[in-house]
Amino acid sequence: MAEQFPVVTLDSDALQAATLLAENRLPGLIVTDADGKPYAVLPASQVVKFLVPRYVQDDPSLARVIDEPDADRAAEKLSGVSVRKLLPDKPERPAELPVVQADDTVLEVAALMARLRCPLVVVVDGGQILGAITASRLLELAVRH
Amino acid sequence: MAEQFPVVTLDSDALQAATLLAENRLPGLIVTDADGKPYAVLPASQVVKFLVPRYVQDDPSLARVIDEPDADRAAEKLSGVSVRKLLPDKPERPAELPVVQADDTVLEVAALMARLRCPLVVVVDGGQILGAITASRLLELAVRH
Repeated sequence: MAEQFPVVTLDSDALQAATLLAENRLPGLIVTDADGKPYAVLPASQVVKFLVPRYVQDDPSLARVIDEPDADRAAEKLSGVSVRKLLPDKPERPAELPVVQADDTVLEVAALMARLRCPLVVVVDGGQILGAITASRLLELAVRH
Repeated sequence: MAEQFPVVTLDSDALQAATLLAENRLPGLIVTDADGKPYAVLPASQVVKFLVPRYVQDDPSLARVIDEPDADRAAEKLSGVSVRKLLPDKPERPAELPVVQADDTVLEVAALMARLRCPLVVVVDGGQILGAITASRLLELAVRH
């Protein structure tokens, strides 16, 4: 039930990762370590968060008083940055990875997705990444039955 | 910058809503009240959560021991249920709605999305729903600049 999904590594370029998310309208990307092992799922919303300056995160009303040209320069923040920098800080990072086995059932995938509140889970088979399952893909599988 | 997005009401059929999410591979749906006013955003992951029986949510290891046919019957749970039932319980529901105005800047939308951790925000103009902006759509707007 897995679908092919773009994979980036911790050292991939953040702007490239954001472009992948944007062009394919994905809810997230699979991030691997240098050995190709699943390391994290990077939700698109996490990249959006990275674009918001810290002082606006702390005081959202400031977003209203920043000139549009400044706001539009948000993407510049991604240039020359690695995907590693986009991931939540260690204490915020869930200890459990959203990874399922190729032979897991719809219910097992749903249970993991619900528990981790993640937009997609990585599907592996013998350590190899086969692809991912998004929440809407899972609903497709569930509704079809 | 808004895009057209399916809208359901609190009283819409839950199975129909799940089918909309599945067929259009959407990260969520806009939910309105009976007057057509935005009431909530229903993330696809929330519908997935609804499919997982309470005892599996409490003890995820049980998902492994349930027979596949039972797991596949998950969608039956959605039949004859209203969208209202899919939304998180009141105490869990964020007090603030993910709604932006048509003339808000990319940064304002990003700040709201980051704060509410929602996969999409509703765009309104004078009380009228124009559509929605997903996280990946917002990245598209940011990266393009």
